[in-house]
Amino acid sequence: MGEEKWMKALVYEGGGRIALRQKKIPALQAETDAIVRVTLAAICASDIHIRRGAVPRAVPGVTLGHELVGQVVETGRAVRGVKAGDRVAVNVETYCGECFFCRRGFVNNCENPDGGWALGCRIDGGQAEYVRVPFADNGLTRIPDSVSDEQALFVGDILSTGYWAAGLGEIKPADTVAVIGAGPTGLCTMMCARLYGPSKIIAIDTDESRLRLAKEKGLADVVLLPGRDEIEARVRAESHGRGADTVFEAAGGTDTFELAWKIARPNAVVVVVAMYEEDQTLPLPRMYGKNLIFKTGGVDGCRCQEIMDLIEAGRLDASFLISHRMSLDDIVRAYDLFEEKADHVMKIAIKP
Amino acid sequence: MGEEKWMKALVYEGGGRIALRQKKIPALQAETDAIVRVTLAAICASDIHIRRGAVPRAVPGVTLGHELVGQVVETGRAVRGVKAGDRVAVNVETYCGECFFCRRGFVNNCENPDGGWALGCRIDGGQAEYVRVPFADNGLTRIPDSVSDEQALFVGDILSTGYWAAGLGEIKPADTVAVIGAGPTGLCTMMCARLYGPSKIIAIDTDESRLRLAKEKGLADVVLLPGRDEIEARVRAESHGRGADTVFEAAGGTDTFELAWKIARPNAVVVVVAMYEEDQTLPLPRMYGKNLIFKTGGVDGCRCQEIMDLIEAGRLDASFLISHRMSLDDIVRAYDLFEEKADHVMKIAIKP
Amino acid sequence: MGEEKWMKALVYEGGGRIALRQKKIPALQAETDAIVRVTLAAICASDIHIRRGAVPRAVPGVTLGHELVGQVVETGRAVRGVKAGDRVAVNVETYCGECFFCRRGFVNNCENPDGGWALGCRIDGGQAEYVRVPFADNGLTRIPDSVSDEQALFVGDILSTGYWAAGLGEIKPADTVAVIGAGPTGLCTMMCARLYGPSKIIAIDTDESRLRLAKEKGLADVVLLPGRDEIEARVRAESHGRGADTVFEAAGGTDTFELAWKIARPNAVVVVVAMYEEDQTLPLPRMYGKNLIFKTGGVDGCRCQEIMDLIEAGRLDASFLISHRMSLDDIVRAYDLFEEKADHVMKIAIKP
Amino acid sequence: MGEEKWMKALVYEGGGRIALRQKKIPALQAETDAIVRVTLAAICASDIHIRRGAVPRAVPGVTLGHELVGQVVETGRAVRGVKAGDRVAVNVETYCGECFFCRRGFVNNCENPDGGWALGCRIDGGQAEYVRVPFADNGLTRIPDSVSDEQALFVGDILSTGYWAAGLGEIKPADTVAVIGAGPTGLCTMMCARLYGPSKIIAIDTDESRLRLAKEKGLADVVLLPGRDEIEARVRAESHGRGADTVFEAAGGTDTFELAWKIARPNAVVVVVAMYEEDQTLPLPRMYGKNLIFKTGGVDGCRCQEIMDLIEAGRLDASFLISHRMSLDDIVRAYDLFEEKADHVMKIAIKP
Repeated sequence: MGEEKWMKALVYEGGGRIALRQKKIPALQAETDAIVRVTLAAICASDIHIRRGAVPRAVPGVTLGHELVGQVVETGRAVRGVKAGDRVAVNVETYCGECFFCRRGFVNNCENPDGGWALGCRIDGGQAEYVRVPFADNGLTRIPDSVSDEQALFVGDILSTGYWAAGLGEIKPADTVAVIGAGPTGLCTMMCARLYGPSKIIAIDTDESRLRLAKEKGLADVVLLPGRDEIEARVRAESHGRGADTVFEAAGGTDTFELAWKIARPNAVVVVVAMYEEDQTLPLPRMYGKNLIFKTGGVDGCRCQEIMDLIEAGRLDASFLISHRMSLDDIVRAYDLFEEKADHVMKIAIKP
Repeated sequence: MGEEKWMKALVYEGGGRIALRQKKIPALQAETDAIVRVTLAAICASDIHIRRGAVPRAVPGVTLGHELVGQVVETGRAVRGVKAGDRVAVNVETYCGECFFCRRGFVNNCENPDGGWALGCRIDGGQAEYVRVPFADNGLTRIPDSVSDEQALFVGDILSTGYWAAGLGEIKPADTVAVIGAGPTGLCTMMCARLYGPSKIIAIDTDESRLRLAKEKGLADVVLLPGRDEIEARVRAESHGRGADTVFEAAGGTDTFELAWKIARPNAVVVVVAMYEEDQTLPLPRMYGKNLIFKTGGVDGCRCQEIMDLIEAGRLDASFLISHRMSLDDIVRAYDLFEEKADHVMKIAIKP
Repeated sequence: MGEEKWMKALVYEGGGRIALRQKKIPALQAETDAIVRVTLAAICASDIHIRRGAVPRAVPGVTLGHELVGQVVETGRAVRGVKAGDRVAVNVETYCGECFFCRRGFVNNCENPDGGWALGCRIDGGQAEYVRVPFADNGLTRIPDSVSDEQALFVGDILSTGYWAAGLGEIKPADTVAVIGAGPTGLCTMMCARLYGPSKIIAIDTDESRLRLAKEKGLADVVLLPGRDEIEARVRAESHGRGADTVFEAAGGTDTFELAWKIARPNAVVVVVAMYEEDQTLPLPRMYGKNLIFKTGGVDGCRCQEIMDLIEAGRLDASFLISHRMSLDDIVRAYDLFEEKADHVMKIAIKP
Repeated sequence: MGEEKWMKALVYEGGGRIALRQKKIPALQAETDAIVRVTLAAICASDIHIRRGAVPRAVPGVTLGHELVGQVVETGRAVRGVKAGDRVAVNVETYCGECFFCRRGFVNNCENPDGGWALGCRIDGGQAEYVRVPFADNGLTRIPDSVSDEQALFVGDILSTGYWAAGLGEIKPADTVAVIGAGPTGLCTMMCARLYGPSKIIAIDTDESRLRLAKEKGLADVVLLPGRDEIEARVRAESHGRGADTVFEAAGGTDTFELAWKIARPNAVVVVVAMYEEDQTLPLPRMYGKNLIFKTGGVDGCRCQEIMDLIEAGRLDASFLISHRMSLDDIVRAYDLFEEKADHVMKIAIKP
């Protein structure tokens, strides 16, 4: 890496402030680290949460960004899976791979102090020119030649989220699946739910243009707009009168949480994909006899190789989510645009 | 059945009132019905709920009782599995066996109007001398000669509840299981959880005598008393510092609901066994990253043959729960005793 | 049905002989029966086995045929799911729905004397103008208006076989699946395997035109021809060097049985879909450490509603398998053509 | 370890010969190694296979032994889970923990050259005073103070085998399980099968004393002796007329392989636990419609912590298998005794 010692990086300064700063290019710290030159990064809803101060464990001074692809420039001597020059997708979670939780695939709960979601939150992330990735063998996935950076950009975060959520959903062939929220996470969830062979995917959102996109891209078979459509009745009509076999709640509101269990058939699985900012009510007496299963939580990003295989095979492609392409120099403006959901923004790809 | 046309039956009269009345002995109504002479019945917590008016669908005038054993006196001509003279356990739920839900074992949601929990709630139950059982092939389980009435008494209801709950719990060999509530349902849950080979079962209750019973009967390995014991710390200490792999909430309070998810390890299953009278709060922001699975609801009583096989094989025996034996003539007094939890009552066996 | 008392039916006469005969139109025998007017029937490989005398339990004098669609003309009074006038697909297996095996979905092993594969083997089948279907609620699936007879023709038999096999295969998203044999059953298996989201399906057959069809219809991603291609090496190359995660053996030969376990990765599932006429060798010492799972057997046709839902939703369509359309009058000639695999025959649709 | 440079070790000399030799005490070779002082070792049936020359990959000159406990004397600097002084059980398999197979628990197929069963076969094993254990974090399990060496001796090999087999068996509560072969492996399989809550375990063996032991120790509920008992009829009588839900074949003969699938009910799982020296026949035409699942192979020893937890909790104890205790000096004689199955030998504990 020679003399180029400094780089640009988007820094969280605490209390709602972010700024593009000069920082030292990171160096290897452990034998299992890799240094990656970032070629493309994205802004995630969690980044907005951090800026708003809604993620207490985010450390002021940290470089933001946990959704990115790049090229390996250097690896620690214990790294075996990647080498300098490799194009890689970076995983939102870094994890040891050896503890009780990692062995079960629950890498978000890795017992290692550097494990779980650290990147762009507790340690410097990837909205920068370079990033250090701990546990590089677990946290990096090689990108095949036939897969573009834009196709690989979401592997480590929102595609992992959709893939994780779909896996939790216990979807069986011919099932009816409902997804509440057709934003980036909801759309990725639909895409991954399709892998389980449901007969129908029903998308529900208050934004008609997002529903249109879900339909056009073949992600949803039926689209419903609250207000215009009688949601509960329509879901039942599409499911032999029973309700959805699996419901994914990817919108994050109190109304949508309630809608989720109402449109579920008895004994359904309700996967809470969204990140909630408020407590929710579980009206057990009203639900009695419905015997629902609620699965809560975030992503366990340990299936990136599978996702990459599916992209390479042409079975998954989320690159259409990129609605805007901007330079790292403009990233603060990109944050504003993303937070305001202006200009029909879905995802913004940032080029360092 | 000849001339004996009238019998005694405990009738729910609405608004908190019950009374022992004379009723006509029931007759067959459908080809799939059976008439059973009751030899032993029990009082269930749900009966108390009904008396209190907390079960809106309970019909005033109905004969109460859904936990009982007896002898078949007559069967409809489509009944194949049992015949007059057979000793049988009666299932809390009657179900068609053919609809979407029944085929998946979700018999509580049977689509037939007579399906689900009807007995002693919407149709006449078994705290009486005789009872008509619809769908007798599904709702009756023959009692082997080597199994006593007292051993078989709980097959159709609380043992089914414990068996259903344990099955939901996804317990794997060597797991640590916590059960909150060591009343009859909690104890049955422990007994059935044991079938999955956990290394440890931890019982938590505020009643020391119940904990002692759990320990004496070999149902729990560790017993914890809130107030005396630091529950969260102790559960972690018993589980390699992680928390319980599966938690069963069989107590039904707001404090125990909260305790349930707190003592669960990340990615654990929390089974809500109790019947709640109030809404509960799901503090998703505080739980974030814990990725818990909540399974809610009541019993699907379609495994009675398996439970009977296990009793016959000596692997299950809940007859020790019978703390009191009383006559049908004294059943109103028995209800009072059971509701007040007086005299260390666990379960009361009623003899018609 | 008035005066039309006689109909044409293809009768198995024993010892390799079949003939089109006049038979009485069947009448209801049990309350759970339905009479169906056949609108389209197919010839199955099992029919050829019967003609050859290779199915000992086939009864001489029986009307052949177990793959068909039609219209209900009359139902017994216990039948609830279908009524006269309904268009229906007929299931290869008739089953009681209530015994130990039926409750677990193992309907081929139904304990009822009329259960399992009876139609066109032990009781009169559907290569005729009319057929009596026992247990009509289980054995008939209504065809939605938007689904044609040709699309529904295979629901009850080879699509059920492919669907059953795919379900046994334990396929997970991103897996590599190999299917040996690209005949009708193999192609249906590929179509159903796709429902589980594999990244790749590899078809292997000695007939290049069948491989071409598999590729054209999007059923296989990679096609391999023994002799031309190095099968083992190619499968490994397509699966990160490991071998297939799941192998379906739908060809039925000794060489293909051996190929099946050789192209499987360690710990893979090998599903034996084909009907074998000879014993096979399990070379356990040579396989040692490979820890394979072999799943053997025939179809359990209890998922016809799911298959129909998927056809209605546009997710499955096997009608392209119909390479020839012939009249019931020509059915003996159709048998010859099918047995000789002449004229690139795949499946023949017979119109009564 | 100071000056004690030499130790006694049992060496496989090729061609049916073994001898107790002086060898250098092993030293650390990799950062992930540990050196263990052996405190107790056992002789396994695989050792006899090696001596007989039936294990081609066994390297002449290697120290035998892969079932042992000891005390850690030194660890490489990357080892985190154990430290000098710890009492440990040694795992038959050493594995990297990171490759495709290890992540799925298929550690026997670890892609690392040192992975899988290496110890006492391809690298020096533990019938010696000291042994070097690669991948010590994966290959060693700490022994709690309350667990004796004799109780822990089988954790890494035959208990792991029984535990793996039982897990493959898909046993559900109330099932009927048959185990063919009541030798050490069969008895461990029964013990671990019990963890899944079957109502009945049926042991089948030609040695009456072994059956008596199975009964006395509570491992089997029913014991059957071929010749004396009508095995197929008796198994059916014990299983509602159906056959066993799961069959474990732990005897390894052609007759027992055939017995295994004959006593299985339709759709049962047959686990092939034994190591076969000959090919077996799968009579698919005769099995047609029985739809059995065969699971073949050896142990994946990655659950040792779970097994140790169960021993500590008093749920597993295989120490009664130790029928003979001998010194390392007498090990060649112990091999002879074990191979001849003389003196009712079950397992021999060797003290260095």
